[in-house]
Amino acid sequence: MSRQAGRKQDNHKISRELFVLTYGALVAQLCKDYEKDEDVNICLDRMGYSIGIRLIDDFLARSAVKKCRSYSETTDMIAQVAFKMYLGVTASVSCSSAAGNEFSLILDKNPLVDFVEELPAERASLCYCNLLCGVIRGALEMVHLAAEVTFLQDKLKGDAVTEIGITFLRKAEDRKHKR
Amino acid sequence: MSRQAGRKQDNHKISRELFVLTYGALVAQLCKDYEKDEDVNICLDRMGYSIGIRLIDDFLARSAVKKCRSYSETTDMIAQVAFKMYLGVTASVSCSSAAGNEFSLILDKNPLVDFVEELPAERASLCYCNLLCGVIRGALEMVHLAAEVTFLQDKLKGDAVTEIGITFLRKAEDRKHKR
Repeated sequence: MSRQAGRKQDNHKISRELFVLTYGALVAQLCKDYEKDEDVNICLDRMGYSIGIRLIDDFLARSAVKKCRSYSETTDMIAQVAFKMYLGVTASVSCSSAAGNEFSLILDKNPLVDFVEELPAERASLCYCNLLCGVIRGALEMVHLAAEVTFLQDKLKGDAVTEIGITFLRKAEDRKHKR
Repeated sequence: MSRQAGRKQDNHKISRELFVLTYGALVAQLCKDYEKDEDVNICLDRMGYSIGIRLIDDFLARSAVKKCRSYSETTDMIAQVAFKMYLGVTASVSCSSAAGNEFSLILDKNPLVDFVEELPAERASLCYCNLLCGVIRGALEMVHLAAEVTFLQDKLKGDAVTEIGITFLRKAEDRKHKR
């Protein structure tokens, strides 16, 4: 990366703490608005989706990545490049289906929960970081990849790691045949 | 700054775009929740206050600044160090009262409105970035400085710049005499 690009990159950076606390305020507001955890989760996912479909342009412009040729490459791109760019961490990836369309992003450290100790007892079904699933889903859709994205494990719920599952819904080959 | 500190600093950085879009989702949600702009503004200020009283510890730890000896020094610290750390921009400062307790932070560029073109006509009284006022107010309170913090000008409302007014409510001398 040239020094020029490095400087430009710096201009896009802000402190994570302000983001994390602002995100906490958003989740708290939705918990006031909706009684059921499921409704909060849906709302966070929808908000994330709206963000993802806008963020993808920023990502493609700034990362200057080439077109991914497989689901595996796409997932690696999310885990290594996008997570690093937007959250300052990387995720590890595992493929969890023989069909090759199901992947897991595993986060040892989830920066979004920096200030959250645990979920309140009455919010046990809350997917606190569900916005992330929506962001990934929205961004993928904009590059013509339909996917289901959900939390499979969550440290906030006592799991050992935080795991986001991505299931790609259509094979690239299927789309080619349709043309 | 040592290289070690530099690296630690990097870990605290994330992309501004995700923050800006998430903040937009928060404001949009509050606009759904509250009909009156004034109520949205109050809510954003309160959320910001809650964030500010937590963020100040992070700021003091990471900036390693010395105690400010005047309102002017404090305002410069917010404009030059805190704004840079948390929003990636600096503000210029002007003092607008003979009493020396009223200051303006002037932002040529407000990163929080990156994706906002203009306020909708029905939301003309919305202080879109009012969270910032609350953050400043909360953080100042934690270092025993009571202040009123409000937007005086806003580019989103057609003003030439974005200007945040800070009025310190009690002189440091007053507090000393009380001891």
